[in-house]
Amino acid sequence: MKDFHFNVIHSSKKSRARVGQIHTAHGIIDTPNFVAVGTNGTIKALDNALVHDIGLQLMFCNTYHLLLQPGTEVVRKAGGLHQFINRKLPIITDSGGFQVFSLTYGSVADELKSRGTKKQGGSVLKITEEGVLFRSYRDGKKIMLTPESSVQAQKDLGADIIIPFDELPPYHITSEALLTSFERTHRWEKRSLEHHQSHRQGQAMYGVVHGGIDLQLRQRSCEILTKLPFDGYAIGGSMGKTKEEMHQLLSFTLPLLPVDKPNHLLGIGDLGSIERSIPLGIDTFDSSYPTRSARHGVLLTKSGGINVTKNEYATNFSPIEEGCECPTCSRFSVAYLHHLFKARELTSMSLATTHNLYFMVKLMQTYREKILEGVV
Amino acid sequence: MKDFHFNVIHSSKKSRARVGQIHTAHGIIDTPNFVAVGTNGTIKALDNALVHDIGLQLMFCNTYHLLLQPGTEVVRKAGGLHQFINRKLPIITDSGGFQVFSLTYGSVADELKSRGTKKQGGSVLKITEEGVLFRSYRDGKKIMLTPESSVQAQKDLGADIIIPFDELPPYHITSEALLTSFERTHRWEKRSLEHHQSHRQGQAMYGVVHGGIDLQLRQRSCEILTKLPFDGYAIGGSMGKTKEEMHQLLSFTLPLLPVDKPNHLLGIGDLGSIERSIPLGIDTFDSSYPTRSARHGVLLTKSGGINVTKNEYATNFSPIEEGCECPTCSRFSVAYLHHLFKARELTSMSLATTHNLYFMVKLMQTYREKILEGVV
Repeated sequence: MKDFHFNVIHSSKKSRARVGQIHTAHGIIDTPNFVAVGTNGTIKALDNALVHDIGLQLMFCNTYHLLLQPGTEVVRKAGGLHQFINRKLPIITDSGGFQVFSLTYGSVADELKSRGTKKQGGSVLKITEEGVLFRSYRDGKKIMLTPESSVQAQKDLGADIIIPFDELPPYHITSEALLTSFERTHRWEKRSLEHHQSHRQGQAMYGVVHGGIDLQLRQRSCEILTKLPFDGYAIGGSMGKTKEEMHQLLSFTLPLLPVDKPNHLLGIGDLGSIERSIPLGIDTFDSSYPTRSARHGVLLTKSGGINVTKNEYATNFSPIEEGCECPTCSRFSVAYLHHLFKARELTSMSLATTHNLYFMVKLMQTYREKILEGVV
Repeated sequence: MKDFHFNVIHSSKKSRARVGQIHTAHGIIDTPNFVAVGTNGTIKALDNALVHDIGLQLMFCNTYHLLLQPGTEVVRKAGGLHQFINRKLPIITDSGGFQVFSLTYGSVADELKSRGTKKQGGSVLKITEEGVLFRSYRDGKKIMLTPESSVQAQKDLGADIIIPFDELPPYHITSEALLTSFERTHRWEKRSLEHHQSHRQGQAMYGVVHGGIDLQLRQRSCEILTKLPFDGYAIGGSMGKTKEEMHQLLSFTLPLLPVDKPNHLLGIGDLGSIERSIPLGIDTFDSSYPTRSARHGVLLTKSGGINVTKNEYATNFSPIEEGCECPTCSRFSVAYLHHLFKARELTSMSLATTHNLYFMVKLMQTYREKILEGVV
């Protein structure tokens, strides 16, 4: 593949951690790295130029949302997602499957953690071998999403890294039903890859490892997918109810993936999970945690973070973190941020998101340095 | 006064329009000019650095809001408003009177246009010669605002231009009650000026011309105020129900003010009013119209403006206005803005506000050029 390749620059002797570089048509992604979520083609409350300046090397956009608004056809006409949203650096899109199924199974986080109960009457109308028929939450239209149409949508969007169409099984499911879903999702991934290969345009496709918390299924998933010419691998599906379960699952799964291809942990990016997963060999993490927290006034710091909306910050005229060189800390005090949140000013969300995103970029840079120094 | 002075550079031969420069401790305000409203110490959805880069020379902050959140004492401790919000260019604050009274009389715009009905049980508890007792909408605390405390609050904030405490009479009022309010407001303005003069700190104070739609009262207001050493004059109170009434009122009032001092039209800044008022000699206009419109998807253009949320803009890949060099138009299409509004992304508001503010800055620059060229 012309535009996409991965170099491992350094592998830790203490763990499976590694420092690498993913090369794409829109530039390099240094790994390990954090991938911010810009669902609709923008990081919420930020201008894409600022995201570029902060140095966020990979942005995650959601095909499901872009399919319904503005429509991937509109984005294609605009010249692709990079052109449409004016982003010069790499973009990754997902398949839409995750969102379609979470409509049926309720809150994704609840479901994956098994906290929720299955919702009745979700918007998924029918799941067949062909694909999924669902109803648009925007205008009620019926939409059929198949491996081919999902990949085609991602071709229209033109992201640097794309994801095959997969099924997200609910957590509470009989082992028989899980197996049915498991087999189908791998057939769908294969069909996705075939459509991708017959419509090459400089994109890479990562296979998605499934199997939930069943280690045997995870192993089988790796066996199936690593035989196919994917450019990298993402870990998807349920990771269990606790960080410990996730740790065990990743410890088991990652050695089953080829070391010369990049891997990605889907939808996990809290600070604790990142710290525990980098030594297991995870290259990239995506999560809306830092940006969503920011919009609620939670600002990340080396000692964990502060909730700037608390009254104790009303007269704190220092920056969020001494020494932080982000556009927020270098210009504004905690007291000003506190005030903007109290006054419900939208600017509060922009300034807080800017800091948290910068924090993540610097955090990952520090992890790479630590791996190179032999500390991790 | 050391830091503040006004130069008239050119006076039109066709009208009372003039081009001037207001010099303040934080730089020059070229006139005529538009003053954007940043109620809580930020233009809604914008970073103050961007506002600086756009070239907005004067920003309007509301003492009433800042008094209740974060408190002017907090701003004083931060080193003043410029320091707190990190703005290098001039700021003007109002007295708080307008907001306190509009709490009682209902929607300010409705009231001034006489569209509303008087609301029962507003938050103003008592109006006496001393001042106004009102209840904070934030925490229910009783607050007494007097000419002295309003000016002191504005001293704490430290804006370049401040406004004396005045009373905003309701539109529907007997002529006797109007006269009582009229006399009191002028006594309050005088007390405000006295407090200002005994606590000089490089600020200028504009007297506020009152009298509602009664031309005789407007004349008397000008007579009273021009005898006092104000640094400039603002036109406040009701301007009538129609643009025609306002035009007549301003045509009558402006010749009664000294030509060597700057004047300001309070709370009016729609494009039509600006066009009609510049030839009458208005130097500065403040209005939340361009920024509020932006947040609703109304983007200003030379031909009047577009509502970008309309479906017809879904596939318009041109900028809002060809040739516009604003940070939004130079990077994004109408279709992207349309998409961001449809997807309810906060970024839509930032990008739209950026354009409208830039539009206003350029519009006023064009007016100044037209006056210099003898066209206006």
